[in-house]
Amino acid sequence: MLHGHQSWIFDSKPTIIASAAVGGPHEARGSLADDFDLLHEDIWLGQESFEKAERKLQEQASELAIKKAALKKEDIQFLLSGDLINQTVPSSFAARTLGVPFLGLYGACSTSMEGLALAAQLVDSKFAKHVLVCTSSHNAASEKQYRYPTEYGAQKPPTAQWTVTGAGAALVSDQGEGPKVTSATIGRVIDMGLSDPFNMGAAMAPAAVDTIEAHFRDLNREPSYYDVIATGDLGRVGHRIAGDLLKKHGLEIPEEIFTDCGILIYKEDQPVVLAGGSGCACAATTTFGHFLKRMRKGDLKKLLVVATGALLSPMSFQQKESIPCVAHAVSIEL
Amino acid sequence: MLHGHQSWIFDSKPTIIASAAVGGPHEARGSLADDFDLLHEDIWLGQESFEKAERKLQEQASELAIKKAALKKEDIQFLLSGDLINQTVPSSFAARTLGVPFLGLYGACSTSMEGLALAAQLVDSKFAKHVLVCTSSHNAASEKQYRYPTEYGAQKPPTAQWTVTGAGAALVSDQGEGPKVTSATIGRVIDMGLSDPFNMGAAMAPAAVDTIEAHFRDLNREPSYYDVIATGDLGRVGHRIAGDLLKKHGLEIPEEIFTDCGILIYKEDQPVVLAGGSGCACAATTTFGHFLKRMRKGDLKKLLVVATGALLSPMSFQQKESIPCVAHAVSIEL
Repeated sequence: MLHGHQSWIFDSKPTIIASAAVGGPHEARGSLADDFDLLHEDIWLGQESFEKAERKLQEQASELAIKKAALKKEDIQFLLSGDLINQTVPSSFAARTLGVPFLGLYGACSTSMEGLALAAQLVDSKFAKHVLVCTSSHNAASEKQYRYPTEYGAQKPPTAQWTVTGAGAALVSDQGEGPKVTSATIGRVIDMGLSDPFNMGAAMAPAAVDTIEAHFRDLNREPSYYDVIATGDLGRVGHRIAGDLLKKHGLEIPEEIFTDCGILIYKEDQPVVLAGGSGCACAATTTFGHFLKRMRKGDLKKLLVVATGALLSPMSFQQKESIPCVAHAVSIEL
Repeated sequence: MLHGHQSWIFDSKPTIIASAAVGGPHEARGSLADDFDLLHEDIWLGQESFEKAERKLQEQASELAIKKAALKKEDIQFLLSGDLINQTVPSSFAARTLGVPFLGLYGACSTSMEGLALAAQLVDSKFAKHVLVCTSSHNAASEKQYRYPTEYGAQKPPTAQWTVTGAGAALVSDQGEGPKVTSATIGRVIDMGLSDPFNMGAAMAPAAVDTIEAHFRDLNREPSYYDVIATGDLGRVGHRIAGDLLKKHGLEIPEEIFTDCGILIYKEDQPVVLAGGSGCACAATTTFGHFLKRMRKGDLKKLLVVATGALLSPMSFQQKESIPCVAHAVSIEL
C-alpha cells in the first residue's frame, strides 16, 4: 500500500522466484562475469542487426527466468518490459515472441526498477500471480542511436559511460522461494540543467539523490538498515556526486554499503568502459544476476537498488534541452 | 483483482473525477470539436519545435484535469504517461514540469488505456489516492519521425490515417463523483505479418479482436452489456476488418454499439484525414473528452474502450519487419 508520499510497501512480500542475466563480450571480461547465465562473444548474436540482437538478449533472459522457475509462458500473466531503442522495438518484438499480455514501459535505464516495482505491486495486490520483468540494452545499438556509429571511431571524454550489452529478467510471484520485494519508491523527474550526454552520471545523480531521500523519508528508515544501497548506472563520476549531494543534504550513506551497478559491472582497468557501465541492462544484470545470486547464497540480506534513467533523446539534445532524469528505488530482502 | 487470464476487476470502482482534452486545427474542424477543452489553431503552440508543442499539449491537458478536480499537483501521487516520439520526450519533459512521481509508459496508441488500466489498478489496490494519466500525439512530429516531413508533400493511399494533434488526461481517484473504471483487459502482442505503415488499421485489427475476445471470455460477459464498444484508432479500414474477424470468431458486436475513435473524431468528408484518426491522442481525446462528457450528461452508461497500438518503429520497418500490435481494453461505467 501507499506509504508516505511516493512509496509502496508490499505487505505480502512478493517473491523473485527466478531471475536471469545475459551479457556480451565486455561483460564477459568484467567483474561480474560469473554471475551471468549466458555470455555472448558475438555482439550480433547471429542476427542481422543490433536491434534484433538486443531483442534476442531479452528473449533469452526471459526464457531462462521462466525455465528456472519451472514455469511455462502460459503461467505468466503479464510481461513488463522496456528498453532504450526508439519505440522500444526490442521489447515489443520480444513480447511478441513470448505471447504474454504486455505492459510496455519507458524509463530509460531506470526501467528495471520501474518494472520490478510495478510487478511487485501487481502481485502484492492480487492482480497477478506471476509477472515477468525484463529490460535490455545493446552497446552498438545505443551508440548508433544516441551518439555515432562505432565505425566512426569517435573519441569520448573520461566522464562518458559504456552501455552494457545484455538483458536481465526477473519473475515475481505470489508464492515460492527466493528474495522478497518489500518496498519501492517511485521517482520524480529531476533536471538540474546539465546537458552533456557524455556525462550522464552527473546529470542523473540529483534524481538518484531525490529518490533516495524520498525513500528514507517515506519509510522512516536509516541508510544503515540496508547491507547494500546501489545506484543504477551513475558510474564513477555520478556516484561520487550523488554521495557528495547526499552528505550535503544531511543523509550520509556509509561508503562501505553505497555502491553503483555501473562501477561494479566492469573492472577498474578494463579498456573502453571509461567512467563505468550504463544502459538499462546495467542495473538489470547487476541486480537480477549478481545481487540476487549473493542473496540466494545468503551473503546479502537487505538490498536497495536505485535505478537511474536519463530521459533525453538525441533530438532533445539537438534542440538544446537539458537532460531530465528519474530514479526508482526497490528494496529486496531475504 | 485478477479475473480470468488477463483481466482485472476493480471492486472499489476507482473514479475518473476529472478529465481534459486538448486538440489542434484539424480536431477543431472535426466532429468532436465541442468536446475539447482547448483547441489550437497554431500547430506550433508558440513553441520552436513540434516536439515541444506536443509537450505543451500534455502540460495543458494535465493542468486542466488537475484544475477541474480542484486539486493541486502536490495532491497527485503518480503520473502515468507516454507518447510516440523517440524516448517519449514530450511525456518526460511534461513530467518534469508537473514534478509528480512518474511512471513512463510505451504502448504506442494504446497508451491511454494502458495508463488508465494501471491507474485504476493502483487506486483500487490502495497504492495511490490520485493518479493522473496523460498521453499525446502531434501530427507534424509523428509525420516527421515515422514518414516524411510534411513539406515533402508525399502522397498517401486512402488506407492511411491522420495522426491526431492533441492530448488527453484523466484523473483517477479513490473517491469523488464521476464515471467509474470497472475493469480492464491487458492485451498480448499480435502480429499477423502485415507490414504496410500506410495501413496501420488493418495491422492493428487482429490485436483489437484478440483483446475483445479475451475481455468477454475473462469477464463472462456479452457485448450487449455495453452501450458503446469503441476501438482506439483502427479507422474505417481497420474497424471493418475487426468487425469481420469478430463475426468469423463467433463474437458479433451489434453495429449500433461498435465504433472507433479514429472514425468518430473527424468528419467523413474532412480533407486529408483519409481512413480516419490515429495517434495516442485519438483514443485519449475521444475517451477523456467526448465519451466522458456523454457519460457525465448521463446519455452513455456502459463504455468499453479498446485502444490499439502499432509497436513498430521506422527502423523496424526499414529492417523489413512486420508490425507487432497490442490492444488494451478498459470499461468505464456510471
